[in-house]
Amino acid sequence: MSGLAALAMSRINALAQISEESGRLTRTFASPAMRRANELVGSWMRHAGMTVRLDATGNLIGRYPAARPGGKVFLLGSHLDTVRDAGRFDGPLGVLVAIACVQQLHDTRTHLPFAIEVVGFADEEGARFQTTYLGSRALAGTFNPEDLKRTDARGITMAAAIRKFGGNPHAITGAKLDPNRLLGYAEVHIEQGPVLDRKRLAVGVVSAIAGQTRARVCFSGQAGHAGTVPMKLRQDALCAAAQFVLAVETVARRRGGLIATVGEIAALPGASNVIPGEARLSLDVRHPDDAERVRGCKDLQSRAERIAGGRRLRVRWELIQQTGAVSCDRRLSALMKAAAARHQREVPLLASGAGHDAAAMAAVTPVTMLFVRCQGGISHSPAESVSKADVRVAITVMGNFLKQLAERK
Amino acid sequence: MSGLAALAMSRINALAQISEESGRLTRTFASPAMRRANELVGSWMRHAGMTVRLDATGNLIGRYPAARPGGKVFLLGSHLDTVRDAGRFDGPLGVLVAIACVQQLHDTRTHLPFAIEVVGFADEEGARFQTTYLGSRALAGTFNPEDLKRTDARGITMAAAIRKFGGNPHAITGAKLDPNRLLGYAEVHIEQGPVLDRKRLAVGVVSAIAGQTRARVCFSGQAGHAGTVPMKLRQDALCAAAQFVLAVETVARRRGGLIATVGEIAALPGASNVIPGEARLSLDVRHPDDAERVRGCKDLQSRAERIAGGRRLRVRWELIQQTGAVSCDRRLSALMKAAAARHQREVPLLASGAGHDAAAMAAVTPVTMLFVRCQGGISHSPAESVSKADVRVAITVMGNFLKQLAERK
Repeated sequence: MSGLAALAMSRINALAQISEESGRLTRTFASPAMRRANELVGSWMRHAGMTVRLDATGNLIGRYPAARPGGKVFLLGSHLDTVRDAGRFDGPLGVLVAIACVQQLHDTRTHLPFAIEVVGFADEEGARFQTTYLGSRALAGTFNPEDLKRTDARGITMAAAIRKFGGNPHAITGAKLDPNRLLGYAEVHIEQGPVLDRKRLAVGVVSAIAGQTRARVCFSGQAGHAGTVPMKLRQDALCAAAQFVLAVETVARRRGGLIATVGEIAALPGASNVIPGEARLSLDVRHPDDAERVRGCKDLQSRAERIAGGRRLRVRWELIQQTGAVSCDRRLSALMKAAAARHQREVPLLASGAGHDAAAMAAVTPVTMLFVRCQGGISHSPAESVSKADVRVAITVMGNFLKQLAERK
Repeated sequence: MSGLAALAMSRINALAQISEESGRLTRTFASPAMRRANELVGSWMRHAGMTVRLDATGNLIGRYPAARPGGKVFLLGSHLDTVRDAGRFDGPLGVLVAIACVQQLHDTRTHLPFAIEVVGFADEEGARFQTTYLGSRALAGTFNPEDLKRTDARGITMAAAIRKFGGNPHAITGAKLDPNRLLGYAEVHIEQGPVLDRKRLAVGVVSAIAGQTRARVCFSGQAGHAGTVPMKLRQDALCAAAQFVLAVETVARRRGGLIATVGEIAALPGASNVIPGEARLSLDVRHPDDAERVRGCKDLQSRAERIAGGRRLRVRWELIQQTGAVSCDRRLSALMKAAAARHQREVPLLASGAGHDAAAMAAVTPVTMLFVRCQGGISHSPAESVSKADVRVAITVMGNFLKQLAERK
């Protein structure tokens, strides 16, 4: 097992060298770097006894056969694309842990009552075409063909990029997996948060993937000369925005499970000697329970209106995006928890605030996720770090999970 | 008098047509538009009995002689340059009121015991070379020859611009006026604030021009994924900045006469799904009393540190600029107030939060200023508006002021 963890770590390091930008790790959908990554990961899959194919979207799929023909399929995987200037574990860890588990079966000439397919998804981050879950939505049958018209920063359409990569844009909608042939999907991923690190635990099981509301909030007051308008006569839009930023923090702290963030802010016209007449900010609200998220957003919206009213300002609230929460499968997650409980004293159930391929796959099959501790909770950064010891735990837990699943079949 | 006000208004409107940008009023230092403005204003000066010269910097100076040779000089004026997309009154009003007062003397063949020089300053706003009071600093002897190396947006040095305009960069430091020959300087300017408009008064007398501190404040925390870092584990730099923005407002409201503004703010890295790891903001603090301004800044700096400390963040405070307050001359301002008191029930003494040529001229001679009401306090905007009735009051008050001054000589 220790050998498998070391191998997975060295493979993750090798993958981190495959980038479309020199000096930092960036590997986007259908890029030459992604082709090289697929070739390398495909060779590892073959070495673990899998047959390998590339689907119409560019997903890399390795198949390890069932003990008997005609068995169903259990899916493992994660994504091989990255954000810009990425860390090396976000995505590849899940693929490499899955390959290690199959390697273990292959090395002991073990076949389970079901086939295992390991998927290296072609695009989860959406860095190239600003649309997430491209790979997993194709397999789940929720791919939107309109997205094929999207263009990247160089004006290349998604359809053209897929064709150039060797895929077939017209075949994507037909690539949906048959739910009757699937047993489920399990994904290992770094937590991307600090909870496991704080608890000094290697792994946790994901209860649900949070729903998300994204909005733009704009306060409008009256610009003016910073030297000549007395304080009491001002209608400073940035002061209202500042009050709102603190209200967002307060509401999220008070309401259990609510996560809310203002990540962008601008004061207009934006000069040191001009009172801001307008202040715009982004709002990101997440909760594993959709009703709670909607209630939190309503609370925030009414607070924004009260803040504006108290200062004789106007506020505009623009909804950008809403996605519902996705629950992990109870039965699969109980199995995952039991497998993890053999390796650590406590197995926390964590709600994932970040999105994952599992959220898209839930449309076609039951899903479960295992989170692995990452140092300081840091992700989407070259500083992303996972220990070899924790990778070993993840391989062991996932291996046990598959064995338990096989015994129940 | 009504005729003079109407003439001044029509001349202000004519000047507003002289711009280096089509469709909006922008007239910067040593530009072709400024040359045309000087030619037009020079013709009005000559019509009022003045001899006209352009000094080494490009200041336009009209001289109306004293009753007897050898008399001292009293200076009137304001600036002929503008900000970008300017209003028509900020600057030109003071020059046109001064010309109207001389016109009145000329029309009645009156000469005072002192000569009057009307100055149309070449640059007060600093829009082209990002340095203010260029014209008045030259006359006051505080021009910094290092500024000649500054370049505009096209890479043209100030020295080259002055030469091309017909000035002489090497003669600027020698252009300082002899303080022994000066009696004082009086400037009419729009208030650029709402106090007179709120009080329904045409004019007010300026007590002092506020000193100013400009700083950059930067809070540093820890960036993180907006979906995965629990609220209680965050070190959100924007939340600290928001607290500080509100502290700035609170402190300025509590401390009499203090004006403080955050006009610029940025959250970094600046993505809707990333917790801000850094937040930077500008701070502009003004007060007519330097000691009060310094005390206010110290209070704000210690609040910034407390806010950062309470959130386990760091704060960096960078001082950008400090300029001391300039008091108007008591004797001249008492005379101006007495002249204004003949035209309105109450003559407020106003501290100017904005800078004016008078602040630079105070280095070489006693100064006084008359503020004129502008609608809604709006300035640095095409919406800037002054009524003809108020221009008439300004001309009358300034005329009376000069008469009183002459009687006291």
